[in-house]
Amino acid sequence: MKYSALLTDLYELTMMQGYFLRNNNPRVSFDMFFRRNPFSGGFTVFAGLGDLIDILQHFSFDREVIEYLDTLSLFRPEFLDYLLNFRFQGDLYAMEEGSIAFPGEPLVRVEGKLIESQLIESMLLNTLNFQSLIASKAARIYHASKEGKILEFGLRRAQGWDGAISASRAAFIGGAAATSNTLAGKLFNIPVKGTMAHSWVMAFPSELESFRSFAEVYPDNCILLIDTYDTLGSGIENAIITGKEMKAKGKPIGVRLDSGDLSYLSQKIRSRLDDEGLQDCTITVSNDLNEEIIHQLVSDGAPIDAWGVGTHLVTGGSESSLTGVYKLGAKDNGRIMEPTMKISNNAEKTTLPGMKQIYRFYDKDGFAMADLMALTDEEIVAGKSWEFYHPMYETARFTLDHYGSVEPMLKKQMAEGKPLSKPEELSTIQERVKSNLKRLDRTYKRIINPHIYKVSVSKKLKQLKQALLEAAKVENLE
Amino acid sequence: MKYSALLTDLYELTMMQGYFLRNNNPRVSFDMFFRRNPFSGGFTVFAGLGDLIDILQHFSFDREVIEYLDTLSLFRPEFLDYLLNFRFQGDLYAMEEGSIAFPGEPLVRVEGKLIESQLIESMLLNTLNFQSLIASKAARIYHASKEGKILEFGLRRAQGWDGAISASRAAFIGGAAATSNTLAGKLFNIPVKGTMAHSWVMAFPSELESFRSFAEVYPDNCILLIDTYDTLGSGIENAIITGKEMKAKGKPIGVRLDSGDLSYLSQKIRSRLDDEGLQDCTITVSNDLNEEIIHQLVSDGAPIDAWGVGTHLVTGGSESSLTGVYKLGAKDNGRIMEPTMKISNNAEKTTLPGMKQIYRFYDKDGFAMADLMALTDEEIVAGKSWEFYHPMYETARFTLDHYGSVEPMLKKQMAEGKPLSKPEELSTIQERVKSNLKRLDRTYKRIINPHIYKVSVSKKLKQLKQALLEAAKVENLE
Repeated sequence: MKYSALLTDLYELTMMQGYFLRNNNPRVSFDMFFRRNPFSGGFTVFAGLGDLIDILQHFSFDREVIEYLDTLSLFRPEFLDYLLNFRFQGDLYAMEEGSIAFPGEPLVRVEGKLIESQLIESMLLNTLNFQSLIASKAARIYHASKEGKILEFGLRRAQGWDGAISASRAAFIGGAAATSNTLAGKLFNIPVKGTMAHSWVMAFPSELESFRSFAEVYPDNCILLIDTYDTLGSGIENAIITGKEMKAKGKPIGVRLDSGDLSYLSQKIRSRLDDEGLQDCTITVSNDLNEEIIHQLVSDGAPIDAWGVGTHLVTGGSESSLTGVYKLGAKDNGRIMEPTMKISNNAEKTTLPGMKQIYRFYDKDGFAMADLMALTDEEIVAGKSWEFYHPMYETARFTLDHYGSVEPMLKKQMAEGKPLSKPEELSTIQERVKSNLKRLDRTYKRIINPHIYKVSVSKKLKQLKQALLEAAKVENLE
Repeated sequence: MKYSALLTDLYELTMMQGYFLRNNNPRVSFDMFFRRNPFSGGFTVFAGLGDLIDILQHFSFDREVIEYLDTLSLFRPEFLDYLLNFRFQGDLYAMEEGSIAFPGEPLVRVEGKLIESQLIESMLLNTLNFQSLIASKAARIYHASKEGKILEFGLRRAQGWDGAISASRAAFIGGAAATSNTLAGKLFNIPVKGTMAHSWVMAFPSELESFRSFAEVYPDNCILLIDTYDTLGSGIENAIITGKEMKAKGKPIGVRLDSGDLSYLSQKIRSRLDDEGLQDCTITVSNDLNEEIIHQLVSDGAPIDAWGVGTHLVTGGSESSLTGVYKLGAKDNGRIMEPTMKISNNAEKTTLPGMKQIYRFYDKDGFAMADLMALTDEEIVAGKSWEFYHPMYETARFTLDHYGSVEPMLKKQMAEGKPLSKPEELSTIQERVKSNLKRLDRTYKRIINPHIYKVSVSKKLKQLKQALLEAAKVENLE
């Protein structure tokens, strides 16, 4: 599916025209960041960058779109002509896709002309907010399952086609092993998996006949759904008959449970299977699973081999959006990139001014200790001690002098509208998530009530924020 | 964006091939229904039918897709050839788009061959679940605002592109007046609206200059965002200066509030505007609104003219999916369409057998009283008294003999794969929702703790279910 630049909020276009007509188009710097981790969790997985870069490269308005805009009686001909030739030519700095991110820190910094940087806001947020939400959910589910086999089965409950396709992409990044979404499999080279529906079982004269028929057609991919009529009464017994027939041919089977108490049933089923010599028969479960339920089942010692997760994985469940925003940090005043900030009556909505870099400090064992946000003209290097200031509270600060290494998190990804490297394979990004999560202490990965990872600001950034707040107060008093 | 038939769960394709190879392809009847109203509400708005019919008409596999499927080592050449020529040729019965629906009743009944009816499941559920969720959310928000002006601003927080586009469509159906999503505006002929971002205000040397610049470019669409620096300190005062200048030119303006206590601030701002003679200046509010917050603000008497609603409207907020399912109700056994049912250890997951119609009974004033599900071969007509049986509880039932009219809810929408009428305008569907909701007592529309609308089954349907349950018990004992 091709991206249309018209997939934007109208106000981006009206603001663009305003800047265009007033000839107000200085170089600017925008930050994309979010204010809290989703799912009351301790971390967020940054995802969507690959799609973002792809869209930015091809971001343009065709004649049909221009004709539609003309019908709105809002836009002047010279601006519509300008749009027809519009291309994004800014620079993009971003964390690597699959990085672990925390509240308040820019995941992306866009540097470019005001018009182009503003225009891309809605699309950038749509892409990064959703995919980061789902990659984070997937990582939580993968962690709760103790790095088990997660099958993403969400298409039917996803929010539209792309709600499904992008979710499959992001879920794989976050740790899912496979998807049921065949189109996503094709587009992103994700393994595709599936079992059978209750309707398969009901489409045959008997449950046993439906199982045997399936085994005959799919001897190497035979997972039987055993809860259509009576799980322990008929389902498992018919599966055992079929499983023994297949075992005789050297083909192991699996069973799937989609209802009932999964802890109780999986244990009953495991022992029936083992009693019948079907130790290699796997148990897959599904039915409105999320990370809390999986965590509980794993703690219970339920003998489950694979987890089919749908709704919660592809929509976020009770938390359906990441609260990412896109805020102006600096603009060229003719001399310098002058820092700007939004000052809110709500301290949490007050933004951090300037062009910023994030530095992740690791201990000597390679575990992440804390992040420091600093201005891009500061030189934060290892081997020195650094002061960490709380981004909001006046008095909270600490000094870090015993640490192993420092990593600047934002890397240049596009220069003048062109990507600086080839698109990454999704499996590479998935591996990065896994390896990054290994460098995060388990207290931050706790499913419920995790430890809060510290994100601080440098002394210089703190002072800049204070100075701008003071200046604004004086201005309002005038 | 063109729909690809590959946007399906893999198991639909593997089951299809199974039926194809076993030559098991009788005529069947599938029902799509959901098990509970979203948002703990009292009703659901059925939406997505227009898109569903459009997709079904064009549902096909192209050669590139077939080549991909071939790489999975699951499909035989004769089946892939079959797919290449596949078209949906079934019949579709559905409620009119914009109907009010309740748990347990089929919104859609598909009658066709097993293979084609099974294949469309994932797509059908993806389309109808999401759009019905969002149309329901929109109707709740519209109701909470006392039929106010709802502006859908959700693109940046939506779940992918289509999560945004389909949400804009469904939100308009449910009662939104406009969208910020320009592409959705073009695709569906929805009015598009927008104001300005904080970055506009920050892109000028002063707040006042930014307001004046905007008013100059958009004298007829001038809504000023007043909370960038200090809402009551500078924002409203600079808006008043600009508002008076525009008033002198005969152009009313508006202000928008995006943070703070919207009840307190809107009242303060209204009285400042009125004191300055700007009675015609409107107040728009936004900031993570949902129906509960809007209901509270309206109860408080907050003087708000328009509501910008984003995240909650386009994702459902804390409830991100409708739990719609697609279940086999009957299959041709060579003599008759034999009723089938899924029997679950969980009574709520046990389905209703057979091919069903829903009848809505209205009182003499035209208000909906109760719905009756019956088999398609029953003749449910007005002028007689009817027994209503609870779908699950054994003993609960009542007789309805004083009522005004009866309406069969499922209407034939497609015959042999072809639509029976032209696509409807979205505004027609929106009007239908509004008029349907007027025929629903306000107790069912209560935002919190609504009255539960009764959905019952006919005596014949009840007896059929009992008979099949008994037969299954006997079968399992054998």
